[in-house]
Amino acid sequence: MVHIPMKRFVIHLLCLSLGLPVAFSAESGPLRGFSAESTRTERDWETKFRAVPDPANLRAYMQRLAARPHHVGSPYDKDNAEWILAKLKEWGLDAQIETFDVLFPTPKERLLELVEPTHVTAKLEEPAVSTDPTSSQRQEQLPTYNAYSIDGDVTAPLVYLNYGIPEDYEMLDRLGISVKGAMVIARYGGSWRGIKPKVAAEHGAVGCLIYSDPRDDGYFQGEVFPEGAYRNKDGVQRGSVMDMPVYPGDPLTPGVGATKDAKRLPRNEAVTLTKIPVLPISYGDAQPLLAALKGRVAPQNWRGALPMTYHVGPGPAKVHLKLAFNWDLKTIYDVIARIPGATYPEEWIIRGNHHDGWVNGAEDPISGLGPLLEEARGLGMLLRQGWKPKRTIVLCAWDGEEPGLLGSTEWAEAHAEELQRNAAVYINSDGNGRGYLEVEGSHTLERFINGVAREIDDPESRLSVWKRLQFRRIGNPPPAATPQDRQELRSRPDLRIGALGSGSDYTAFLDHLGIASVDMSFGGEDGGGIYHSIYDDFYWYTHFSDTDFAYGRALAQAAGTTVMRLADAELLPFDFDDLTDTVKRYVEEVEKLARDKRDQTIERNRQIDEGLFAAIEDPRHKMVAPPKEAVPPFLNFAPLENGLAALQRSAQLYDEALTHATENGGSALARAALREANAKLITVERALTLKDGLPNRPWFKHQIYAPGFYTGYGVKTLPAVRESIEQKQWKLADEEIVKVGTVLENAGEAIQGATAELGKAVR
Amino acid sequence: MVHIPMKRFVIHLLCLSLGLPVAFSAESGPLRGFSAESTRTERDWETKFRAVPDPANLRAYMQRLAARPHHVGSPYDKDNAEWILAKLKEWGLDAQIETFDVLFPTPKERLLELVEPTHVTAKLEEPAVSTDPTSSQRQEQLPTYNAYSIDGDVTAPLVYLNYGIPEDYEMLDRLGISVKGAMVIARYGGSWRGIKPKVAAEHGAVGCLIYSDPRDDGYFQGEVFPEGAYRNKDGVQRGSVMDMPVYPGDPLTPGVGATKDAKRLPRNEAVTLTKIPVLPISYGDAQPLLAALKGRVAPQNWRGALPMTYHVGPGPAKVHLKLAFNWDLKTIYDVIARIPGATYPEEWIIRGNHHDGWVNGAEDPISGLGPLLEEARGLGMLLRQGWKPKRTIVLCAWDGEEPGLLGSTEWAEAHAEELQRNAAVYINSDGNGRGYLEVEGSHTLERFINGVAREIDDPESRLSVWKRLQFRRIGNPPPAATPQDRQELRSRPDLRIGALGSGSDYTAFLDHLGIASVDMSFGGEDGGGIYHSIYDDFYWYTHFSDTDFAYGRALAQAAGTTVMRLADAELLPFDFDDLTDTVKRYVEEVEKLARDKRDQTIERNRQIDEGLFAAIEDPRHKMVAPPKEAVPPFLNFAPLENGLAALQRSAQLYDEALTHATENGGSALARAALREANAKLITVERALTLKDGLPNRPWFKHQIYAPGFYTGYGVKTLPAVRESIEQKQWKLADEEIVKVGTVLENAGEAIQGATAELGKAVR
Repeated sequence: MVHIPMKRFVIHLLCLSLGLPVAFSAESGPLRGFSAESTRTERDWETKFRAVPDPANLRAYMQRLAARPHHVGSPYDKDNAEWILAKLKEWGLDAQIETFDVLFPTPKERLLELVEPTHVTAKLEEPAVSTDPTSSQRQEQLPTYNAYSIDGDVTAPLVYLNYGIPEDYEMLDRLGISVKGAMVIARYGGSWRGIKPKVAAEHGAVGCLIYSDPRDDGYFQGEVFPEGAYRNKDGVQRGSVMDMPVYPGDPLTPGVGATKDAKRLPRNEAVTLTKIPVLPISYGDAQPLLAALKGRVAPQNWRGALPMTYHVGPGPAKVHLKLAFNWDLKTIYDVIARIPGATYPEEWIIRGNHHDGWVNGAEDPISGLGPLLEEARGLGMLLRQGWKPKRTIVLCAWDGEEPGLLGSTEWAEAHAEELQRNAAVYINSDGNGRGYLEVEGSHTLERFINGVAREIDDPESRLSVWKRLQFRRIGNPPPAATPQDRQELRSRPDLRIGALGSGSDYTAFLDHLGIASVDMSFGGEDGGGIYHSIYDDFYWYTHFSDTDFAYGRALAQAAGTTVMRLADAELLPFDFDDLTDTVKRYVEEVEKLARDKRDQTIERNRQIDEGLFAAIEDPRHKMVAPPKEAVPPFLNFAPLENGLAALQRSAQLYDEALTHATENGGSALARAALREANAKLITVERALTLKDGLPNRPWFKHQIYAPGFYTGYGVKTLPAVRESIEQKQWKLADEEIVKVGTVLENAGEAIQGATAELGKAVR
Repeated sequence: MVHIPMKRFVIHLLCLSLGLPVAFSAESGPLRGFSAESTRTERDWETKFRAVPDPANLRAYMQRLAARPHHVGSPYDKDNAEWILAKLKEWGLDAQIETFDVLFPTPKERLLELVEPTHVTAKLEEPAVSTDPTSSQRQEQLPTYNAYSIDGDVTAPLVYLNYGIPEDYEMLDRLGISVKGAMVIARYGGSWRGIKPKVAAEHGAVGCLIYSDPRDDGYFQGEVFPEGAYRNKDGVQRGSVMDMPVYPGDPLTPGVGATKDAKRLPRNEAVTLTKIPVLPISYGDAQPLLAALKGRVAPQNWRGALPMTYHVGPGPAKVHLKLAFNWDLKTIYDVIARIPGATYPEEWIIRGNHHDGWVNGAEDPISGLGPLLEEARGLGMLLRQGWKPKRTIVLCAWDGEEPGLLGSTEWAEAHAEELQRNAAVYINSDGNGRGYLEVEGSHTLERFINGVAREIDDPESRLSVWKRLQFRRIGNPPPAATPQDRQELRSRPDLRIGALGSGSDYTAFLDHLGIASVDMSFGGEDGGGIYHSIYDDFYWYTHFSDTDFAYGRALAQAAGTTVMRLADAELLPFDFDDLTDTVKRYVEEVEKLARDKRDQTIERNRQIDEGLFAAIEDPRHKMVAPPKEAVPPFLNFAPLENGLAALQRSAQLYDEALTHATENGGSALARAALREANAKLITVERALTLKDGLPNRPWFKHQIYAPGFYTGYGVKTLPAVRESIEQKQWKLADEEIVKVGTVLENAGEAIQGATAELGKAVR
C-alpha cells in the first residue's frame, strides 16, 4: 500500500512521455469528503461489501419475485412486499411496510373494432407461449390497457399521426389534416406515452390508440419472442397515461400522502386523468386499421416497418372504441428499511427501486430490485462485522411505480417535512441489463459518482466501468462524438452524466423536494421488445438479457458503494464545479434556442412574404403554408448570466476551502466540527428549487431539471425558461429568467454558507 | 417593349426598399454573347420557338414509340429509328441513320434456386397486369437480367451485404464476415448497379444477386403498381452491369467506333464484362432467400422494408445460380439530323436523347425523346420562316444507351476527330417528370444555363423555372440548406449546377472528348418504381407522372432555347467565373479530404493503441478491430492552388475583355472578326482533359469530372486527385496534383487565347 504513490508517479511520467492522459485510477489519494485515514477504513469496508453480491441470489430473487403477476392490487404484489420485508429482517435490518390507498383503475370492458370500410374486431390479447412457463398465467394477468385512461365509447374516423408529439401536429397542419373529432393512432416512441393522448385531446381528438410498430421494438430490430428478444405481433405495451408532467402519484391526493384519512379530490377534479379514452394495441391489431387508411402517404420519417404504405387518413377507416374501468382505491405496500447513522443520524441517504410490475415484471423492475436486495444483505453483513455508517441509510422497495410513481411519490409527500430537513441524496434504479454504466442525476454528484464508477469492475472487459464507458463514448462515430468531444473525453476528469427527466421513482425526491438524486443501471448491449408485456418474465430475462446476472452483481456493487461512501464521508462529497460547468451549458443552450427561434421566425416570415410556399406547391400534393408569426423579441438573459457568475464564484471559493481542508492528508476533515458544514451542503440542492414551482405546474419545484411538459420522460433543463421559449411565451420567459437567475444566486449563497462552516471546521 | 427598362428600374427600387434581392428577370439587358440588336432578334425567334411544343404531340409520340418493347436488337427498336427518321425528314431536316454493330448479350438460360435449408425456385418473371395493355407483350419482352454478366453456374452460401459498396465491406470486415466463395445479395441503390458485382468479385464472391427492396422503390415509398406508381413484388430492375467506369460503349471496341469493319477484341479480353455471374430479382423472389439467412443481424442502416429481421449470413441459405447468354453482335441505329450553321458551320451544337428502352421504356427514355422531337419540329418550322442559326445543330436519337451508352459512345468515337475540332456543346436529356428543372453539367455553362432557366415558365407555379428552383432550394430544411446556403441562394446571380457523373449519353462527349456538356430534365414531384421493368410504359406514365405532358413541353422549351441561343450567339456564351468558383470548392474539398483521412487514421490508430476495441467488445456480438494503418503523409497541394490562381486570373481578364466588348450595347460583338475568339473558346473545355486520361482508365480524359470508379453514376470531381486520396495512394495523389495543376494552368492559357482574340475583335 505504501508504494502506491510512487507507482502512480511512475505511471504519470510514462503517460506524459507517451502523450497519453494520466489515468484517473481508483487509488488516487484520499476520497472526496474523507480524511486520509478514514479513506483507508472506507476502502476496507467497501472491498468487503463488493465481495458480497452473488449472481446466484439475484437469479433466485428474480425467480421468486417474478413467478406470478405482481401489479398493484394483485395478491402477489402484497405477497412480494411481505417476502421482501421478511428478507430485510432476516438480514438484521429494521424494516416495515408502509401502505397508501391510491386510485388504480383496471379494465371492466375493452372493445376495439374497425367498423368501416370492413369490420374487424381487435384481439387485445397476448397469447401464452409454450416455452415460457409464466406466460400462461391468464387468470392473474392484467389485460392490456393504459392506466388512467377515462371511460369512453366513441366511433370516429381514424388518423395516423406518427408518435403523436407536438412536431407531428405541425406536419399535420402543413398537410391540412385536422384530428378534431377523429380517433388517432400513434406509435409508441418519441415521447413518454402519456403525451400522446394529452396532445391529441388538446387538438380535439376523441380517442387515442397507441401501438408498438415493429420498426421500433419488433422484427425490424431482431428476432421476436420466443425465438428472439423482440416484440411479437401480439405483444402489447401496457402503461400509465396519467398526466405526470403535471404531478405524479395518486391523482386524488396531489401534494399530500395518500394515507387512509387523506383528503381526496373527487375523481372528476383529478386533472391528471386523460381527457379522452386511450388503448394500447399490438401491431397485429394495428395493421388492419392502418391498412384501411387512405389519404396522404405518411411523411417518410413517420413510416414504420409494417409491409404496407403508411397513410395518414383521415379515414376511410372508421373505428369504434369502448372502454370502461373499475375506479377502485387499492392499497400499495412500500417496504422501508432503516440503518441509523452513528454520527449524523439526521442526514439520510436513501436508496430505492420499485417492486411492482405490470405483469410478471422480471426486467422491469426485478432486475433492479434484486441488486438492491443484495446491497441490503451486504450492508447487514457489514453491520454485524462492526461497520458504523455515519449517516442514516434508508432502503426502499416501492410499490405502484408503474401506474404513476405512486409508492415513492406518496411516501415522499407523506414524509415531506422530514425529508426536506434530512435527506442528503436519493439513489434510484429501475431495472438492469448488460453493457455500460448509465448514470443520470444531479450534477452536484457528477464528480462523486465518477469516483464510484472507477471502483467497479466491468464483468466483460475487466476494466473499470468508468474506463469502459469512456472508451464507448470515444468510440462513438460522428456526429455522436466529434473530435472536440473526444478531446474532452480524454482530458476532462469526469465523464458527463445526463440530467434526470422522469419515468421513475426519483421524481418526487428531486423535482418536488429538491433532494440531490442519481439513477443508475447497466445497459446498451441488448435490446428487446417485451417492455410491459406478459413476456417480461424470468424466461425472457434469463434467455436474452443479463443471463448470468454478472451485471446485476455490478449494479449492486455500484449502488452499494455509492450508498456506503455517501453514508460514511466526513463531509458530504458534493461538488459545484461540475454543476457550474453544466449549468453554463444549459444557459448557452437556452440563449441559442431563443436566437434560433428568432432567426427561424424571421426566415419563415420572409419565405411567406416572398411567396415561397405557393411557388413550391405540388398541385397533386397540396400543402398548407404556415402562418406568419410575430418575430420573437430579444430576451434579457443578463439575470441568468449574473446568477451563473455568482454560482461560479461560490463554487470556486468552496473548492479552495475544500482543498485547504484536505491538504495534509485531509486531517482537518477528521475533526468533529463538520456537522454544520454538512447541514449547509444539504441545503444547496434545495436552493435550486422554488416554492411556487414551475409555471402552471407548481408540484415541480426544481428550477434546473424537470420532465418536459410535452416530452414526459425527456428532461428539460432550466425548464421554466426553456419551455417558455419553446411555447413562445416571451413575457413569461423574461420573468422566469429573473427567477432562475435568483435561484442560481441562492444556490451560490447556500454554497457560501457551507464554505464558511468548512472554514470554521478547519480553523 | 420600350418601357421595359423603366419598369425594371422601378422594380429594382421597390426590391431595394423591401430589402429583397433584385430579381434577375428574363429581360435584363443583352444576352451573353449577343449584341443589343441580335439579342432582340434572338428573343423574337425564341419566343416563336417556345410556342411550338405541344403536349398532344408528346402524348402521341409516347403512345407510338412505347407501344412495343424496343430494346437493342428488337424489331421495334429499328422500327422506331425509322419512324423518327421519317419524322425528322417530314419536318424538313437533313437526317440519316448511322449503324454500329455491338456486343449485346441476351439470356439463354436463367435459373435461381434456394437449395438449402429448403428448396425454392425463383420465378424471375414480371406478370402482366390486366389494366395495363402493353404489360402482356410477353413475346417481345426481354427477360429480367443484367446485361454483360458473364455466363456461370455456381452454388454457394449466401451473404447479404446491403448496397454492396466499398463501405459495406468495411462493415463486413468489422463483423468478421468474408464473401470469399459466397453468393452475395445486394439491394439496388447506393451506387450504380455495376459497382456491386465488381466490388463483390474483387472480394472473392462467386455470384451476385441484386434485388429491389420495397424500402427503396416499393410499398415503403407509396402504393405499388397498378394501384400506385411504385414497384410491386414481382417488378425487376433490368440493367447493364458493364464496368463503365473503365470505359462505356461496345466492350469489344474501346476507343474506336464499332463500325462493321472495326477491329474487335476477342470477348475474353473485354475487361468491361463482369467477373462473376449477376442476376437482378424482385423482392418477391428475394424474400425467401433473405429469410433463410441467419448469423448476424444486419446493421440498422442495412435493413430494408421486408417484414422480417434482416441477417447477414453467411448461410445457412445456399443458392444455385445458373446463367447463360447469347453473345451476339447486334446492330444499333442512331438517328442523326443536321442543321448547317450559316456563319460558323464548323462549330457544332449537339443535342441528344436515346430512343432504346429496356422494355416499353415510356419514362426511360421516351419522356425525354418526345421533347427532342418537338424541338426538331420547332426548329424545322423556324427554318422555314427564315431563321438562320450561326452554328451547325446536330440532333441525335441514340440507340443502345441502356446496355452501355452504346449509340452515343460509338458515334462519338467514330467521329472523334471532327468532334474534337468542331463540337462546342453537347446537350443531353434522358427522360422527364414533373417538378423542378434539374441541370448538371460543365461549369463553363453554369451562367448561361441560368439565363435559359429564367426564360422558361413553370407549368404549375407560372413562375420561371429558375425562380421556382431557387425557392425550392431556399425552402429546403436544414441541413440541406443552412442560413449560409440561403444567403448565397438569395444573393448569388446563378444557381449552382451539379457536376456530371455518368449514366447517360453525355459521357463520351464530356469525359472522353472534353466537350462542354449539360444534362437536363424536370423532376422531384413524383416518385415511382417501374424503372427498367415491363411496367415503364404508356399506361404508367399517363397515370402517375407528367400525365398532361406539361413538363414535357417545358423541357422542349428549355432544351430548345438552349440549343438556339448557343447556335445563334455571336460569341459562345461560356463563362469562367462560375467555373473558377466551382473548381475552388473542389480544391478545398480534396484538401479537406486529405486532412480528414489523416486525422481519422491518427484517431483510429490511437484507439487501437489504447485498447478501445477490445474494451467495448460485446462477447455476444464480437467485432473485429480494424488494423492499424500508416498515417497518411501531408500532400503538396501547392500545384493545384497555383493552377487555380492562374485560372482565376485568366477568368478575370476574360471577364474584363467581355465587358469591354459588350459595353455600348455590345456593338463590338456584331463585328465579324469573332471566329477566332469562338474557336479559342471551344478549346477551353478540351484543355481540361489529359491525353493519357485518369490513372488506370485512360478512356476518361477529363480532369475535373468523372464517374467514380466505385460509384458509377456518382461524380468524382478532380477525380485523379480525389480517388488517389480515397484509395490511399499517396504517392499517386502527389503526382496527380501536379498534373491537374498543369491542366488548370492550360485552361487558363486557353482562356487567355480567347481573351486575346476578343481584344482583336474589339479593336
